[in-house]
Amino acid sequence: MGLALALAERGYGLTEPNPRVGCVITDASGRLIGCGHTQRAGGPHAEVMALRMARAAGHDLAGATAYVTLEPCAHHGRTPPCADALVDARLGRVVAALTDPFPQVAGQGLARLAAAGIRVEQGLGAIEAREQNIGFLSRVLRQRPWVRLKVAASLDGRTALENGASQWITAEAARADGHAWRRRASAVLTGVGTVLDDDPRLDVRLVPTPRQPMRVVVDAPLRTPTTARLLAAPGAVRLYTSADAATQAGWLAAVRARPDAAAVELVHLPGGPNGKVDLAAMLTDLASQGVNELHLEAGERLNGSFVREGLVDEFLVYLAPKVLGLGRGMWHWGPLASLDQAVELEWTEVRPVGADLCLRARPRGRLAGWHGPSGA
Amino acid sequence: MGLALALAERGYGLTEPNPRVGCVITDASGRLIGCGHTQRAGGPHAEVMALRMARAAGHDLAGATAYVTLEPCAHHGRTPPCADALVDARLGRVVAALTDPFPQVAGQGLARLAAAGIRVEQGLGAIEAREQNIGFLSRVLRQRPWVRLKVAASLDGRTALENGASQWITAEAARADGHAWRRRASAVLTGVGTVLDDDPRLDVRLVPTPRQPMRVVVDAPLRTPTTARLLAAPGAVRLYTSADAATQAGWLAAVRARPDAAAVELVHLPGGPNGKVDLAAMLTDLASQGVNELHLEAGERLNGSFVREGLVDEFLVYLAPKVLGLGRGMWHWGPLASLDQAVELEWTEVRPVGADLCLRARPRGRLAGWHGPSGA
Repeated sequence: MGLALALAERGYGLTEPNPRVGCVITDASGRLIGCGHTQRAGGPHAEVMALRMARAAGHDLAGATAYVTLEPCAHHGRTPPCADALVDARLGRVVAALTDPFPQVAGQGLARLAAAGIRVEQGLGAIEAREQNIGFLSRVLRQRPWVRLKVAASLDGRTALENGASQWITAEAARADGHAWRRRASAVLTGVGTVLDDDPRLDVRLVPTPRQPMRVVVDAPLRTPTTARLLAAPGAVRLYTSADAATQAGWLAAVRARPDAAAVELVHLPGGPNGKVDLAAMLTDLASQGVNELHLEAGERLNGSFVREGLVDEFLVYLAPKVLGLGRGMWHWGPLASLDQAVELEWTEVRPVGADLCLRARPRGRLAGWHGPSGA
Repeated sequence: MGLALALAERGYGLTEPNPRVGCVITDASGRLIGCGHTQRAGGPHAEVMALRMARAAGHDLAGATAYVTLEPCAHHGRTPPCADALVDARLGRVVAALTDPFPQVAGQGLARLAAAGIRVEQGLGAIEAREQNIGFLSRVLRQRPWVRLKVAASLDGRTALENGASQWITAEAARADGHAWRRRASAVLTGVGTVLDDDPRLDVRLVPTPRQPMRVVVDAPLRTPTTARLLAAPGAVRLYTSADAATQAGWLAAVRARPDAAAVELVHLPGGPNGKVDLAAMLTDLASQGVNELHLEAGERLNGSFVREGLVDEFLVYLAPKVLGLGRGMWHWGPLASLDQAVELEWTEVRPVGADLCLRARPRGRLAGWHGPSGA
């Protein structure tokens, strides 16, 4: 299962909106005879890749064991059901890390295997498989992406000096690690304030990637300059705005006149009482676009809105061994009246990255409702 | 040497102003025949304790090996030289972790052993021994204590809400760990602002201790209430003030009238241009009082003064898995004009303590001049 999980990682940036799945097949003596991972959406799933490899080498599949990181699908989507393919190959045993909460699978894949007399086991590697597909599970179970808020800060929690200087607080290794998290996300989101301040590209540059994630900008007044760097190809850009139709049309025309324009779409969301974009509605829309993991890299105002509305599922903090003193914080929220109003987290990971530290934490109990379907 | 280092820890809170030293003696076959650690100042050193144990059990010391965490002393202080005791016992070999930079030792202890034909080795366990005696080394090499600044903060670097609420940000295990650091310090320091806000006791309660460290208050205007809890026995209290003599006399009389008064001393330090106590002069005075490690637990103003003046040798940060939003920071310093003015640190330790994290960091190169005498 360890190898199957490692194979699944090769699907990062490739399989969306589908989950990342790896599969390993061993013969009756335990010898590896096939392996594979899910390809681009519409392409073969991991099980089919592994079966193909085994057959191409002339191996007999009867009685073999398949280790797969997610329950084999049971429905006709863009590809035929993998459960049927495993039954047809007359496998003896299937070990699945995680059951698939997708309504058209949800246990039916394993049930079909069992009905065909295949021995079925579930649970080995479930936590690792859940982590790999946390965005897919979020979208299927909650109809919104898994929101990961990333900040780079000093030991004293500063993300920039008072004058805005922030390049760079962390070192090269932490920035590359941050790009690896961008890569596995379907979309990278920021606010118009950061666009105006830093003109970021928001793409994946410091690690190789099979595609650029969608760039998303929260921009109620539609103040993103039509010359902004993140509007350049390759990839897609989605802006959420409450500007009127005429303003939108003029802006879009200017962007599309750029020879290097990305595929840009404007989404109109009515502003809330304070003129801000409705973030929950935006997340629902992003889920409908197949966004599994959403990587949030914004300034303290937009970060604060996500924190205030309880929409952050995971905090990804790079902590540099530096003292910066007065400056900007991670998020502008509060002040609270008492300590029991704090957002309680639990550490998910603490790890050195070069000279910096990577800390990940999630709101306590965030996965509570997931235990059934995720099997972990 | 591992056992000798563990024994040295038993001297925490006991040996000041002397170093914490452990000693293990093995016979020619490698069997442990004696061990001990330095006792209260004026009492026997580790080597003598170990020799006594071996002799009490009737062991022959000729040709034995002594493992000692610090170079045996070569001078007559309150006790005779340990180097002589080891020579008299006709040991065959002495392994010392660290040479002693104390001017009256400084290599002469090892030289005396070698001159007597004893095989001498140095360096094994040097880093651990240096960490145990970092305050002693600081006082001897720099004539000031090792200053360890402790804060408890949320993930977003807040040490209190805007309304001042801070009890408690971290959990019980982290608070007990903080008391273990207080215990190994000779003195615990805070500012008058914290005394007025929180009325702390500043003593060691959550772990056992052979004595209470000295409490130190930076209080230029002498506003510490004479009823403050930290003025109660047991232990000593030292206040640094720039108040005039009459004010001091009245205040002292009121404190000494308390039936539970600790041994309180006032030290007059002329205020600087801004009326503040001269912190560098204060550290020199504390070193002259035999303070090796100084544990700083103050508010953001006094912490900021220590950071501004470059007087913090080590940051001890407990990070709670919480988001607090707007509130007080770790230290009030800056704002800086550019990122290259940041205080560059290096991580010394990253460790979970209960649900919280303990991060320790030191200014980069802080021990640079120590490599010679510390042997590490």
